[in-house]
Parts: sequence; structure tokens; C-alpha cells
Amino acid sequence: MPKRPSVVVVGGGFGGLEAARALGGVDADVTLVDKKNHHCFQPLLYQVATAALSPADVAWPIRSVLSSQQNATVIMAEVSGIDLEACAVATSDGLRIPFDYLILATGATSSYFGHPDWAQYAPGLKTIEDATRIRARILSCFERAERLQDEASRQQAMTFAIVGGGPTGVELAGAIADVAHNVLARDFRRVNPRSAKIFLLDAGKRVLPTFEEELSEYTREALQKMGVEVLAGCSVTNVSEDCVTLSDGRRIDCCCTLWAAGVRASAAAAWLEAPADRAGRVIVDDSLRVSPHRNIFAIGDVAASTSEGKPVPGLAPAAKQMGQFVGSLIAQELSGESRKPEPFVYRHQGDLATIGRKSAVVSLRRIRLKGSPGWLFWSVVHIYFLIGLRNRITVAINWLWEYLTFQRGARLIS
Amino acid sequence: MPKRPSVVVVGGGFGGLEAARALGGVDADVTLVDKKNHHCFQPLLYQVATAALSPADVAWPIRSVLSSQQNATVIMAEVSGIDLEACAVATSDGLRIPFDYLILATGATSSYFGHPDWAQYAPGLKTIEDATRIRARILSCFERAERLQDEASRQQAMTFAIVGGGPTGVELAGAIADVAHNVLARDFRRVNPRSAKIFLLDAGKRVLPTFEEELSEYTREALQKMGVEVLAGCSVTNVSEDCVTLSDGRRIDCCCTLWAAGVRASAAAAWLEAPADRAGRVIVDDSLRVSPHRNIFAIGDVAASTSEGKPVPGLAPAAKQMGQFVGSLIAQELSGESRKPEPFVYRHQGDLATIGRKSAVVSLRRIRLKGSPGWLFWSVVHIYFLIGLRNRITVAINWLWEYLTFQRGARLIS
Repeated sequence: MPKRPSVVVVGGGFGGLEAARALGGVDADVTLVDKKNHHCFQPLLYQVATAALSPADVAWPIRSVLSSQQNATVIMAEVSGIDLEACAVATSDGLRIPFDYLILATGATSSYFGHPDWAQYAPGLKTIEDATRIRARILSCFERAERLQDEASRQQAMTFAIVGGGPTGVELAGAIADVAHNVLARDFRRVNPRSAKIFLLDAGKRVLPTFEEELSEYTREALQKMGVEVLAGCSVTNVSEDCVTLSDGRRIDCCCTLWAAGVRASAAAAWLEAPADRAGRVIVDDSLRVSPHRNIFAIGDVAASTSEGKPVPGLAPAAKQMGQFVGSLIAQELSGESRKPEPFVYRHQGDLATIGRKSAVVSLRRIRLKGSPGWLFWSVVHIYFLIGLRNRITVAINWLWEYLTFQRGARLIS
Repeated sequence: MPKRPSVVVVGGGFGGLEAARALGGVDADVTLVDKKNHHCFQPLLYQVATAALSPADVAWPIRSVLSSQQNATVIMAEVSGIDLEACAVATSDGLRIPFDYLILATGATSSYFGHPDWAQYAPGLKTIEDATRIRARILSCFERAERLQDEASRQQAMTFAIVGGGPTGVELAGAIADVAHNVLARDFRRVNPRSAKIFLLDAGKRVLPTFEEELSEYTREALQKMGVEVLAGCSVTNVSEDCVTLSDGRRIDCCCTLWAAGVRASAAAAWLEAPADRAGRVIVDDSLRVSPHRNIFAIGDVAASTSEGKPVPGLAPAAKQMGQFVGSLIAQELSGESRKPEPFVYRHQGDLATIGRKSAVVSLRRIRLKGSPGWLFWSVVHIYFLIGLRNRITVAINWLWEYLTFQRGARLIS
């Protein structure tokens, strides 16, 4: 009996999971390797970081997602390298997983523009652990303010700087404003959380640069009304424990800086000794292959790919489409079909970002929404894309609860 | 204007929170100090440790619980000592909180019978952090088994030893059996979680020693049927990373040991230089005062108190009753009433323990329940005692979900 071909997928994010699923009906052993035991729904991580949802609401055990897919095995292990000669993935605990096909979907981490020392002062938001750490940091600032004696220190303890005006930065800024002005307002005696200052910094001309200018402007105004000071056109020249310095010489004395500015691809390019772009992403061809390897693919945030001449953005739908594409491509090759595959084409479904309580901006092909209609649309879409009925119910109840009571249910420092 | 008297409560557990609440209508400044920002519902911690509930389901911000009590201030700080001469509580970050009355409700931690080095191998279950750490440890054992190559190591990776046959030990053992046999069963490919071995060890003659013998026996049989091996009359002589040694010379090779055996009171006795019992609990008089101090009280697990000649057990209802008693006593003194107070009398409401899915034992004054009726009663009581409607709804949904689908929603290693 000939050995079944084996497909190894590294990474259980949107791309990797979709690739594994696309190989569901195929006569091959599919092994998904991830250093975490869970898939994380990154678009809602900011809600964990701001105490609205619990980690388990936005994360699912990968092996549970693939439980009914009989040809799929899940291994929780950290990949340490790839043996290209032997065609095997090596893990840090000494495992070697041979592959006939390899799909790299290892994602990206926060990047600090050549200042890795800023990371300790300005955490990024990529994992569940990041989110609970940021949650603890935000809540601890208010706890600290309540303990402090002098007014200047108190104000500094309640000053937040968010670097990066993309969706994550906008969502964090809006959610922190909501936490300060609504959720915590009545719980403190010595300080008034309503006097918290939130700065949203971006080096570009406007927030949400991938959206139409009108929606950017709407977002800026909505944030300002919520008490977020938007400083566009300001690049950050230094970050320390209690201060952010801007290119125009301004200093923001703060207690909590969050990073939503840049990303850098994970180490896949180094594993393969393959060419990468400036952000460390593996350069792939129009079939998402890492040439010259016919059997190695890179997808999602770790891949530098183009679609119809334009770079594919680092978004969840893009990663899913790439996963689906590569899974189907391998399935086709394994079935013996020899026709040349069509190149990967990315279909942009739209852009969404929440601004705050009852407010979001949505830009789909022909639809532009803002304010409450945008928020309603955003909520329905996100609940729809969650995995599992339990999570959908829990998230919906939590949102309804927050909507009605102005309270957030996961205010834990731990 | 004379200064308002100040009452400082150290600890936001069942006792401390109840004491603060009992002082709600009193013309005094009540300050509750806790090193955490949240009150933790310890009776359900084992459900967090076994992935059934999220931390936020069983924990609430203390300042949110006391939000509407206008005379209460909450300070998140770690108490480092008590200045008895100046009547002030000192915190590790240099704060000094003066008091006219002091209530110590600092609880207990796990105790290892003079072997503190066992703590690293056999974590106890007292805090939210303990629970998430134990959850990660339990789930990681199965992940590790799936990675291992030889059968003996795999079996060892799926062997669990729980030390201590009280309610927490019984509940952990039953829940781990449920996780192995129901929740994880279909999610692994190389190992069968159903073959996991769970040992419940107790030095005494029977599990649940505070319950009637019949209910103990029922529990032992029910656990055995669920695949838990109950070893009573076995004391533990050594705990290492991968092995528990028993007094009869037996060795249990395991990957995960959990400690539910003994507790030791927190440092309050040392702060006061007050007499303590063997478990480190401050000895209090029949008004729960720490003599010779007329204005210092100890309640809950940190106090060695008696009621009608019998020691008061370390249970949540006992702590709540003590908090209620001391709060009322101080309120009475502050109102100028001079009659001698009645001594503290503990009213035992009953004993409850879950064994597993759809099974619990309940021993109230005249009621004895076991199996499904016990489980139903247990569930209703615990939902009733949770704080806040959101948590009640979320917990109820999670339990219903688990009941219907055999799945647990919080299977995160983080």
C-alpha cells in the first residue's frame, strides 16, 4: 500500500485553518501545527483587551474545530525550522514532521520600526496573552490613579497613547474612551475616570487610510466627540515607560502606550532562506508558492503576494481566501489533475471598523454605512464569522448587556 | 466638624465583601483593600480550572460590587504590614491607610504540610491565576501525549493525581474525568483521552469527610464509575515533577498533580504579632476580635474562631456570616449603643459537592440529595449565589451548553 501523501500546515490562524479545511475531502494526511492550542479571532481581540469579552469568547481549540475532519491531525508544538532536504518540519521539542506539501501560515507580530526596545512599553495586540496583558495594563492605570495623591500624577496615570490609526488603533482608542467615560465612571471615589485623556497618533494624514476620506473624517470627528484626541501627521520618535515623544517635539506623559502601528512577518522566510520583502514576508508567486519549491506555499500575513498586480492586504478575509486557494490547489494536484491552475485572485469584500458604542464605519462595494447602522452591520457580520454557536450566543449576550447597562463583563486584572 | 470614623477591611473575599456591605448605611468611611481588583467566587474555581467557565464568569471587580455604596472606597494594593501604634495599614507601594476599626479578611493559601517545594509540582486552587494555570496544565498533558511516541510516556502524560478528598478534590477529579472521557474524546488522533487515569488520594478513611458516611460512599462509587481511582487512607510522602509517592510505597507516575489537601492562613497573625493556631489562623474571641485590640477583627479563613464551643469551618457561608456579624457589631458601636453584643454563632447551612456531569451530593439540615437531583439543586444554588445577572445568565448558558453538547467552552492554554 503506498503511503498517503502528507500535507503539513504551520499555523492555525484564518489562513491555516481554512487551508486545512479545504483539504477535508482529500485522500491525504493533513497535519496542522501551531504553538497555541487555539485559533484566535483577531478582529475581536481589542474587545478582550478592553474587558468587553473573555478570551474564550474569541478563541477556539484548533483540534475541536477540526475534530470531525478525519484526515486532520493537530499538533501543538513550536516550529523551530524546516529541513528542506528531508522535507520535514522540526519542532522545538525535537519532533520531525515529514511533508509532501507544506503550507506556511505563521502570521505576523508587531513591528517597532527598528526600535525593538519600545515593545516592553507599548505592547501590540496579536494574541490572547497580549489582550489580557493590555486589559490588565489599562485597568491598572485607573487603579493606580485612585491610589496616587497628587493631581499631576493622577492625570498622567489616566493618559493613554495609542500609536497607529488603522482599524485596531481606532477600535482601541474608542473602546478605552468608552471604558473611562461609561464603564468605570461611577466606580471610583478619588479620581474621575471621565477625565482620562486618550491620544490616537498616526504618522499619516488621516486615520483609517484604507477607507474613503469621508469615512476617515467621520471617524476622526466621532472619536473627538468621544474625548479621543486624534493627532494625525505625527510620527513617534521615542517611547519610554511614561512618555511618548512625537516628531514635532511634543511629549505625551502617559501611563499606558499601546502599539497598533506596524507588523512584521514571522520567521518563515528565514526557515526557508527565501527572499522576503521589507516587512519580512516571504515572496510568493501567483500560485502562492515559494519558488523554487513546488511543494511549499505561504499564505496570509506571512506572504508577500499580489493579485492582479496589486499587493494583497493583511486582512482576515485575504488569509482565508489564500488558505482556500492553496487547499484546493493541492487537492487538485493530488487528484492527478494536470491543467495549469488559475493564479490567485483576491476579492476585497470591504472594510469595517468600530469607533465606539453604537458607532462604526463600513465600506463595502456599493454600501457606505456609518454611526448606528454601521455598528449594527458590524455586529451582525462579526457574530456571523465567529466559530460555534456557543460563542455566537455568548458574544451576542455580552454585547446586548453592554449596550443596555454600559457595563463590561470581563474587568479582570490577572 | 469631627472626622468621620474609618473602617478598613483587608481582603475582598466572601468575608471582607460582606463586612463592607454590612457597613453600607453607617456614617463612616469604609475602605476595602485587596491586592486583586476582583472578588473571586472560589466554589466555582474548579470549573475554570477544567475549562467549563471563563475567569470573568466567576469573578467581579470589587469596586463594581461596591459602586453604589457611597461610603465605600476600594483600593487595589498589597498590604505589607499593620502599624498598631499609629493604627494604620501599610501597603507595599508606600500607602498608609489609617483606621479606627480594622477587619482582616485575607483568607488562606494552599499548605503543603511542611513541604513548600511541592508547590511547584502540585499547584493549589485558590485564585483565578491558579485556575488558568491548572487549566493550561491539564490541557497541555493531553497535547503532550499526542506528541509523544512511546506508549508508556503517553500513558504517564495522561495520568492525573489529585491530593485531597474534600469537595475541591472530588470536584476536580470528577471534572477531569469528564474532560478526558467526554470533552476531548473525539479531538485526538494518536492517543485516546478516554484512557486517561485519574487518582484521587486522601490520607483519611473516606472522601468528603464532613458529609454523612452514606454520601461519602456514594461519591466514591460514583467517581469509580467515572474512571477515577479513589485511594483513601494513603498519605503522600513525596511529590516530584512526574511522580507522587504514597505512604504504602506505591508510586504514581503522572504528568499533573493537583493539590486540594491543606490550607494555611495568610500572614495576618504575623502582621499583628497575635497568637495563631497551627494553620496560622489568628485566634479571635467570641466577638471575632483579636485581643487585646478592641478595634481589630479577623474573619473567614484567616480567623480561628469557635461557635458554641465548636470550631467554625473554612467555608464561604461561614466567612459571609462572620463578615455580616462584624459589620453589624461595628455599626452598633459607632451608633453609640453600649449593650454587650451577643457572641458570634455560626449557622451551618449544609454541604454540597459536585461529582461530575449530572451528579452531586447535598446534605442540608433535613435534606439529603444525590445524583441528578443533587446536581440540579447544586446548580440552582450556585447560580443564585453568583453576583450579577450577566454572570448568572452566562454561567447558566455555559452549563446548559455543556449538558447538551458534552463540550466545555473555555479550553484555552494561555
